[in-house]
Amino acid sequence: MGLSPANKEILDKAIEALHTRVFHAQYPEHPSPKIYGETADEDGKNAFKALRKGRFEELQQQGEIAWVGEEDSPYFAEPVGTTYPQFTNEVLIERAEKAFHSWRKVSKEDRAQVLIDSLERFSKRFFENAYATMHTTGQGYMMAFQASGPHAADRALEAVAAGYEELGRFPDSTVWEKPMGKYNLVINKEWRAVPKGIGLVIGCSTFPTWNSVPGVYADLMMGNSVLVKPHPGAVLPMAIVVAEIRNALRDAGFDPDACQLAIDTKSAPIAKELAEHKAVKVVDFTGNSEFGSYLETLPKAVFTEKTGVNSIILDSVEDLDKVIQNITFSVALYSGQMCTAPQNFFIPAGGVKTPEGVVSFDEVAQKFADFTNGLINNPKAGPFVAGTIQNPATAERTVEASKAIGGKTWLETRNIEQPIPYFKNARTQTPTVIELTAGDKDKFSKEMFGPIAFLIKTKDTKESVALAKEMAESYGAISCGAYTTDNDMKEYIADEMSLAATPVSFNLVGQIFVNQNAAFSDFHVTGGNPAGNASFTNPDYVNRRFTWVGMREPAPRG
Amino acid sequence: MGLSPANKEILDKAIEALHTRVFHAQYPEHPSPKIYGETADEDGKNAFKALRKGRFEELQQQGEIAWVGEEDSPYFAEPVGTTYPQFTNEVLIERAEKAFHSWRKVSKEDRAQVLIDSLERFSKRFFENAYATMHTTGQGYMMAFQASGPHAADRALEAVAAGYEELGRFPDSTVWEKPMGKYNLVINKEWRAVPKGIGLVIGCSTFPTWNSVPGVYADLMMGNSVLVKPHPGAVLPMAIVVAEIRNALRDAGFDPDACQLAIDTKSAPIAKELAEHKAVKVVDFTGNSEFGSYLETLPKAVFTEKTGVNSIILDSVEDLDKVIQNITFSVALYSGQMCTAPQNFFIPAGGVKTPEGVVSFDEVAQKFADFTNGLINNPKAGPFVAGTIQNPATAERTVEASKAIGGKTWLETRNIEQPIPYFKNARTQTPTVIELTAGDKDKFSKEMFGPIAFLIKTKDTKESVALAKEMAESYGAISCGAYTTDNDMKEYIADEMSLAATPVSFNLVGQIFVNQNAAFSDFHVTGGNPAGNASFTNPDYVNRRFTWVGMREPAPRG
Repeated sequence: MGLSPANKEILDKAIEALHTRVFHAQYPEHPSPKIYGETADEDGKNAFKALRKGRFEELQQQGEIAWVGEEDSPYFAEPVGTTYPQFTNEVLIERAEKAFHSWRKVSKEDRAQVLIDSLERFSKRFFENAYATMHTTGQGYMMAFQASGPHAADRALEAVAAGYEELGRFPDSTVWEKPMGKYNLVINKEWRAVPKGIGLVIGCSTFPTWNSVPGVYADLMMGNSVLVKPHPGAVLPMAIVVAEIRNALRDAGFDPDACQLAIDTKSAPIAKELAEHKAVKVVDFTGNSEFGSYLETLPKAVFTEKTGVNSIILDSVEDLDKVIQNITFSVALYSGQMCTAPQNFFIPAGGVKTPEGVVSFDEVAQKFADFTNGLINNPKAGPFVAGTIQNPATAERTVEASKAIGGKTWLETRNIEQPIPYFKNARTQTPTVIELTAGDKDKFSKEMFGPIAFLIKTKDTKESVALAKEMAESYGAISCGAYTTDNDMKEYIADEMSLAATPVSFNLVGQIFVNQNAAFSDFHVTGGNPAGNASFTNPDYVNRRFTWVGMREPAPRG
Repeated sequence: MGLSPANKEILDKAIEALHTRVFHAQYPEHPSPKIYGETADEDGKNAFKALRKGRFEELQQQGEIAWVGEEDSPYFAEPVGTTYPQFTNEVLIERAEKAFHSWRKVSKEDRAQVLIDSLERFSKRFFENAYATMHTTGQGYMMAFQASGPHAADRALEAVAAGYEELGRFPDSTVWEKPMGKYNLVINKEWRAVPKGIGLVIGCSTFPTWNSVPGVYADLMMGNSVLVKPHPGAVLPMAIVVAEIRNALRDAGFDPDACQLAIDTKSAPIAKELAEHKAVKVVDFTGNSEFGSYLETLPKAVFTEKTGVNSIILDSVEDLDKVIQNITFSVALYSGQMCTAPQNFFIPAGGVKTPEGVVSFDEVAQKFADFTNGLINNPKAGPFVAGTIQNPATAERTVEASKAIGGKTWLETRNIEQPIPYFKNARTQTPTVIELTAGDKDKFSKEMFGPIAFLIKTKDTKESVALAKEMAESYGAISCGAYTTDNDMKEYIADEMSLAATPVSFNLVGQIFVNQNAAFSDFHVTGGNPAGNASFTNPDYVNRRFTWVGMREPAPRG
C-alpha cells in the first residue's frame, strides 16, 4: 500500500513544520462555506440532529452488553439523546490484544497512510462535530468548530508526523565491522521499533477531541492498539473520530479493533480498572490532578494533562486598555474552562507603569471589571465568546466564589440573560473578579475551574514573578502571560518561569490570547511541572510508546 | 570558547555513529604500548600505588567533615587504603544548586567542549583507572582496562553526542506568521532547553565507571549539575573521572561544583535521602531491583538499570563445540558478575540439532561442564577471564547454590588454586552448573548473581522461548542469546523476545559474546522490561533531563 502522493505531501509538510515551527495548518480553521462548501454548516447541523435520535451504530463494534448515553446539552438543558454500545473490559482488552498483533506488524508508511486517511474523513465532518462539541462541552460555535475540528486534526497530524519521524530515527539494519587486527569481526545488526501493547486514552468533558486525539494517533502511529474512553458527558465528538479511524482501518484491510470506543457511565466508571490492566501499557489522561497523579505512579508509559494555576504578570505596558481587553477576553473565553485560561493576575500595589504614568491597582481592577462587562454585554460578542458552562458544579463554584473566597469583589458573576436567542435555557455564568493580596496564597494556590479571576496585589513585580513561579512549581501551570516594556525584566521573567517549565506569552494584545496555542509550533504543556508530564508533541510523547530492540548475528564468513 | 576543531571532529563522528550505528570507537580498547605509550602500564600501576597511600586530594572539594574509604581489593584481600572527602548532604546540594545556575546558562557548544576535554584527560589515566577498577571490582586486568576506560569513555561520549543533538532539535527562535485575512499575525517565538536541576548518579560495585558515566555526562550535557555517589566498595575509578571533569570545568573557568563526588559509607548510606531531596530532579541508578523500583516511583526523571534474568535458547547449531565454548566463556567472564551474563540455558529434552544429528541434553550438559573446566583450568586464560568475586556474598551464594537449589549438579564451584601468581589471596569461585526442568520456575526466575548457570530441560524450543520471554517480561532481561539454524524459528524468537523488549544475539561463536555490547551501536538495556527503564543511549535517555519551554511575543508592527 504505502503512502499515497497526497498523504505523503501532508506528512512531509507536517514533519517540516515540526522542525521549523513556523505557522502551519493542514486543516483550515475558518468555518467558511468557500472552504468547506456552501451547505457544510447546514448539513452538519442536520447530521447532528440525526445522531440525537438514538444509537450511534457506525462504530460497528459488535456484541454490546447495553446501549448507554448520558450527555446533556448545556445549551438545551436536555439530554443529547445519543447512545453508544457498551462492552465488558474483558471484551475490549481481548479485541485490542488481537488487533495489536496484526497492527504492530504494519509498516510505518501504511500506518501513516491509514491515519491521515482517517483525518481526511474526519475533516468532512467538522461541522457535525462542531455541533456535537457545542452540545456536550458547552463551547461557543466558533471554538467548537475550531478546537474540536481543524485544530484537533492538526494536533493529531502532529503526533503522526512526530511518531513517523521517530520510527525512522535509527536504521532498520546495518553491517557492523570491527577491526580485530588479523581480521574484521562482522556483525549483521537489526533494530525493531516494538510498540508497547494496548494504549488507553481517557478524555475530558471540555475538550473531548483536542485533548484526546494526540494520544490516540500517537498510539496508533507507533503500532499500539488503543482504547478510547471519553468522559461520559462528552462522548459524541470522539465517537465520530473513532468511527472514522475504524472506517479507514477497515477499508485498508486492517482490523478496526486497533481503535475501539470504550464507553462507561458516571455511576460505573471503567478508567481505573482499564488503566491497571496488565495488558494496558500506555495511558493518556486529561482531567483532575488527583487521578492523574495516581496514574503517573503506575509502572507504565503514562501521559497526563492535569490541572494548573495559570498566572498573568502585569509590570509595565504600552497601552493599558489593549492589555486589559486582551486578558479579560482570555477569562471570558469559554467561561474560563480552558486549561490554558489565566486565573491569577499579579499586579503591583504601586500600580502598572504606562507611557502616561503609573496606573493604580484600583484603576487597573476597575478597568478589568469594566472591560469584562463590556465584552459580556455586547450581544454580538459576549454570549458567543463565553459559551456555556459544561458542568453544573463549575457554575456553582463560580456563583459561590465571592462568598467562599472573601476579599473585595470587583465584579460578581451573573447569568447572561437571553445568552443566544435560540438557547433560552443555556447554563451560563459571567466572570467573577475578586481582589486578593500576596498573603492569600491559600486562596489562589488551587485551580478554581471556571470564570473566576483573582487580582492579586503584590509588593512589586519581583514578588509577582516569585509567586507565579511558586504556583507553577508547586501546583502546575500550562500558560503564563506577562506584560513588561523593560527588557531586563522580560528576561528575568522568562528565565524564572522557564525554571518552572512554564511557557510565557509576552505583551499579547489584539487577536492573540494566552489561552491559545498552535499545533506544530507551540508545545502544549511542557511536561516539566505538576500540570502534567505530557507535551504535544515533543519527542518524549512518541518515544515512550515503543521500545527499540536490537537483534544481531555474525555475518557468514565470506 | 566554543568547540575546538579537534573536539568538534570527535563530536561530529560520534553523532554520525549514533545514526549509522556502524562500528565506532573514539578510545582504542587495546591496552597497547603502541597506542598509549611504552610506559603507560607501568606508570598507571605506580599511580595507583600512590593513590593507595591515603587521601584522594585532587577533587579539591573543600570543607569536608571526614575522610572515609571502605574499599577492599578482592585480589589482595586487604583494604585499598584510599580515603575520600565526605560532606553533609546539605553542603553537597547547596553547592550543586549554586553551580547549576551558572552551568545551565553555558552554551551547548561550551558544555560539549568541556566534557570532551574531560574525557581526553581521563584517557590519559586509563591504566591507573584499570588498576583502580581491578582492585575494587575484582575484574580481570583486560576487562578492567576496557570496560572502565575506553568503553566507558565511549559510552560517555555517546551520551554527550545524543544530548548535543537533542539540544539542537528545535530552533532557538523563529518568526511565526499566520495569515488572518486582512493582515498577518506575526509572533516572535523562542524555545529554551531548560535543564531540570540537580542530577544524582548512584553507582554499583561491579562496573563503577561504565554504568555511571553515561548518566553523569548526560546530566552535564543537558545543563544539570550532578552529584556522583559511587558504591562505597568501588569509589576510586569514579573519583578519577570526577576529578578530571572538575579539572576540565575549572580550567575552562566554570564552577567545578557542577560535578561533585558524594561519598558515603556502608553503615550510613545517603542515596535515599539525596534521591528524595526536592532539589534533586534527575536520578540515575544501577543496582538491585528493590531500591531501583522504589526510585522509579519518585516524581522525578529516574533512569534505572536493575537486575534481570538472562536466557540462552539452544535449538539447532552448525558447530556445537564452538557454541558451547562461546556460552561457557560468557558465564566464566568476570565470574558471571556482568548484568548481561546469561544464567538460564534452555535446552530441549530431545536435544540440540546439529548437522551430525541430534545431540542429547546430557551430552550438551556434559560439554558445558567440560568446556567450563577447560577454560578455567587453562592457566593462561581461566584466571584472567574469571577475575575475582567482588562481594563475599556472591561467593557465598555460589558455594551454596547446588545445595540450595537442588537438581543435578553438572559442575560444582571451587576456588581457582593459585589464580594468578601475584594474588595468592584472591577471592575466586569457578562456575557452578545445575540442571533444572521447565517446572522449576521458582528456582530460575530470580537473578542468581555470580557464576551460576542453570541448564533447563524444556519440552521443545517453543517452550524455551515462552519461558525466556516470561522471565524477561516478569523479572527483566538485558540480554538473550539464541542458537538456531532455522530461519522461521529465528524470526519467531526475534519476534517473541522483542515483545519482551529483550535484544537477541543469534548464533554467536568465536570472539563475540552475548555479554558484550558496543557504544554507538548496541542499545544497552532497552527500557522496555523490568530490568530497567534506561537505555544507553536512546533519545529518551537525554530528553527527560531537560524541558522545552517556549516564549513568544507579537512582533512590533512594521
